[in-house]
Amino acid sequence: MQSSRSLRSLGVADATPLLQALYSMSITNIVQKSDTTAGRAFDVCIMVLIVYSVITLSFETLPGLPESVDAFLRTSETVVTLIFTAEYLLRIATAPNRRKYIFSFYGLVDLAAILPFYISTGLDLRAVRAFRLLRVFRLLKLQRYSKALDRFGKALVIAKEEVIIFLFATFLLLYLSAVGIYYFENAAQPEAFKSIFHSLWWAVTTLTTVGYGDVYPVTAGGRIFTFFILMLGLGIVAVPAGLVASSLSEVRENEEKEI
Amino acid sequence: MQSSRSLRSLGVADATPLLQALYSMSITNIVQKSDTTAGRAFDVCIMVLIVYSVITLSFETLPGLPESVDAFLRTSETVVTLIFTAEYLLRIATAPNRRKYIFSFYGLVDLAAILPFYISTGLDLRAVRAFRLLRVFRLLKLQRYSKALDRFGKALVIAKEEVIIFLFATFLLLYLSAVGIYYFENAAQPEAFKSIFHSLWWAVTTLTTVGYGDVYPVTAGGRIFTFFILMLGLGIVAVPAGLVASSLSEVRENEEKEI
Amino acid sequence: MQSSRSLRSLGVADATPLLQALYSMSITNIVQKSDTTAGRAFDVCIMVLIVYSVITLSFETLPGLPESVDAFLRTSETVVTLIFTAEYLLRIATAPNRRKYIFSFYGLVDLAAILPFYISTGLDLRAVRAFRLLRVFRLLKLQRYSKALDRFGKALVIAKEEVIIFLFATFLLLYLSAVGIYYFENAAQPEAFKSIFHSLWWAVTTLTTVGYGDVYPVTAGGRIFTFFILMLGLGIVAVPAGLVASSLSEVRENEEKEI
Amino acid sequence: MQSSRSLRSLGVADATPLLQALYSMSITNIVQKSDTTAGRAFDVCIMVLIVYSVITLSFETLPGLPESVDAFLRTSETVVTLIFTAEYLLRIATAPNRRKYIFSFYGLVDLAAILPFYISTGLDLRAVRAFRLLRVFRLLKLQRYSKALDRFGKALVIAKEEVIIFLFATFLLLYLSAVGIYYFENAAQPEAFKSIFHSLWWAVTTLTTVGYGDVYPVTAGGRIFTFFILMLGLGIVAVPAGLVASSLSEVRENEEKEI
Repeated sequence: MQSSRSLRSLGVADATPLLQALYSMSITNIVQKSDTTAGRAFDVCIMVLIVYSVITLSFETLPGLPESVDAFLRTSETVVTLIFTAEYLLRIATAPNRRKYIFSFYGLVDLAAILPFYISTGLDLRAVRAFRLLRVFRLLKLQRYSKALDRFGKALVIAKEEVIIFLFATFLLLYLSAVGIYYFENAAQPEAFKSIFHSLWWAVTTLTTVGYGDVYPVTAGGRIFTFFILMLGLGIVAVPAGLVASSLSEVRENEEKEI
Repeated sequence: MQSSRSLRSLGVADATPLLQALYSMSITNIVQKSDTTAGRAFDVCIMVLIVYSVITLSFETLPGLPESVDAFLRTSETVVTLIFTAEYLLRIATAPNRRKYIFSFYGLVDLAAILPFYISTGLDLRAVRAFRLLRVFRLLKLQRYSKALDRFGKALVIAKEEVIIFLFATFLLLYLSAVGIYYFENAAQPEAFKSIFHSLWWAVTTLTTVGYGDVYPVTAGGRIFTFFILMLGLGIVAVPAGLVASSLSEVRENEEKEI
Repeated sequence: MQSSRSLRSLGVADATPLLQALYSMSITNIVQKSDTTAGRAFDVCIMVLIVYSVITLSFETLPGLPESVDAFLRTSETVVTLIFTAEYLLRIATAPNRRKYIFSFYGLVDLAAILPFYISTGLDLRAVRAFRLLRVFRLLKLQRYSKALDRFGKALVIAKEEVIIFLFATFLLLYLSAVGIYYFENAAQPEAFKSIFHSLWWAVTTLTTVGYGDVYPVTAGGRIFTFFILMLGLGIVAVPAGLVASSLSEVRENEEKEI
Repeated sequence: MQSSRSLRSLGVADATPLLQALYSMSITNIVQKSDTTAGRAFDVCIMVLIVYSVITLSFETLPGLPESVDAFLRTSETVVTLIFTAEYLLRIATAPNRRKYIFSFYGLVDLAAILPFYISTGLDLRAVRAFRLLRVFRLLKLQRYSKALDRFGKALVIAKEEVIIFLFATFLLLYLSAVGIYYFENAAQPEAFKSIFHSLWWAVTTLTTVGYGDVYPVTAGGRIFTFFILMLGLGIVAVPAGLVASSLSEVRENEEKEI
């Protein structure tokens, strides 16, 4: 807006449409803005590449892939990473404040998305392959293109105190549940409830109602204890979600009032 | 209403009750309207047939049925489909705008409810029998008779943005959970956590708290990871339901104010 | 109140306290009212007996009880039933409108609480023993002593339409889930997903997130289908509870305004 | 505040900063107050010790620990308990009202946190080791440092009546579910559904949607019964959490209005 006005003030008013088109094609605008056609196209391309890269990363973990598929995945991985590297360098080059971008959340995520590729090159150890899973942070780049998460952040700020209280209560309850069930079940099932740490696993799967069924109480005392812990715990685990939901409604209502 | 008034304007005011009764018996009104006795009876008959048809469809899948029951189910299926076909043709014949009805959601569902019967005739392949399961769309015709789902639609529109954010967060969290658990559990359980795709199955059953117990972490790292993922994930999965509930309350309150 | 006033109008004002005490001791007041000391004591005694009876009923089902315990439980059962019978007859005798009481909900529950005892006498068949489980309705008598459930009823009336919509949506979703999973899993697990009825059991345990783990999909298609059904279904199953909760808040707020 | 003012009134206004610093270092202030640097440091140290003690308590339950680790844990346990004992005596010594502190909730918790150590000394029985698990109450001391739980208490008071109704409804439903499933499943699974008490365990794991999968219905009747119980029960179990969440929002809004 400002620059097109400065162009017009230079007496080139009739050339404006062409100049504006050229201006909007400049690399800075394509990379940094998303309100022009070219900028939006660039963003969409990057997003498609991120999703493609995330999917191929998943395919790579499939055991027993044919050699040809494996080779294709590796080549495709190299190409994607080179594109992301070029994008990263462009972002640095066109950033208004380079230092600020590099150390911003998105700058670090952009770096984390390409670094594992270069670090693992030449190495063939299992542990380093696990490092490559960090490429998953590439997915977090999707955040850049959405202001939507801001509202969720605001809702969390409103309900912060209560959520912290309930997180504390959850931890306390998990620990007390683990100690209690250890006391009741250790004698009957010394393998499943070997220590308080093993009992904590039971507490987590039970209070979240996941209930895999790998560990469960068998004594009458342990079952009655489980009942009381569940009566108390279901509320404590379920309330925070309700709090965040009501806070989100609050944020939305406030925004509607402002408009 | 309008036509009875036009009849009255023709000077047949005293014959009106009889004429109205006759008029309301016309096929157009029976098929298209549901505010007359005959129209309502027609709708109820169709609904009963839909439920009957859905139940017999379920019975057909029972293995080892006696020949006589099987024959009865097949005959009953033919009869019901013929009735539905007649209803479909009547709906087209009496529709104010035929093209619009045929390509409307309900027109397509009505067609999908009878088509599999005609397509499968003469064929006896297993795959085509599965196609016949499409007859389940017959059930969706029940929607036609209820305006109630409209409110739910309005509530979804109000909470649309938040629900989309949470769906996105759910997908992101599912993927990150699968990558994380793959890293922790692949070495210990190469069969259950064979690839990120297999780990996704674990992520789905765990974050929804279904917890079948067919796959679960056994390493200390995997269990601690599961704990943190659950603390984060329970909220993300549970919040949208709370949002829709509060939006529904909003829609209801607004409707009450308007009345 | 009214009767004490009528006594006072008869010029026995100074004898009132004594008369009131005597009056409040009359059988009618003890059985029918719960705002006098004697009436409250009677109600509490009956409640204690109901709880006692419910607990002994549970004990009777324990296999391998010693003969002496069994005999005690049977005697105690006879005594309790006789007390309940006397109470039932007293309630009929003191009811302002006998026919109305006998055919009221509580009248029928009172009868259902004692009838199985008399019907099973002399018979020793297993099926009749199951009939005796109907004695559990005795527990429902506890409702009489609490007006609290009224509020819950009001909340249900407010949210009635939405709850019905969601119940309908739940049934529809359960059926569609069962048909879908039958299509995906029947070939791979012909025993677990034998028919749509068997698949319905899977749909119920999955959409309620109970997830016993006795049936679960094993094919890729079935698992992806489960994922989408869960994304859709968790909301549909969880929203009604949120609706009832917000309606209950509404009822409470309205009551506070009236006071 | 008051005492520094009394010092100033004694004409030592210019010595105030130094005196205040000394005063704030006095044992009474360190132990009883948490708004001075020294007091806060003392509180943080105690909290760190509590967490450390809780973690070592968990480690002690691990079977097969090397002798050296076991010895270290026992020594560390002795040191921590001695510090807690000193703290307890200091709290008594500096309390404004000693009797009140000793019999307050925190006073009793402080005592319960150290007593098991002294009682178990010299004894080496298994049962007494279980007693030592009472040391877990040490964790409850963390409550002292947080006023946050007060709000949760207020919310519970607001929703008290409804929560009690729903707890009652939960108990009633659990019992009725257990009786019903006993009737349906006892013949088919005499071991899993041995008595109503065993069936109660099934009712608890099912209605809370934990669903371990150790007991589940196998008969058609039992499964249909489970479906209806779940439709009814999910609401009853989930509504209280929603009620507490909405009450918490209410308390927060009221507090915001007051400020």
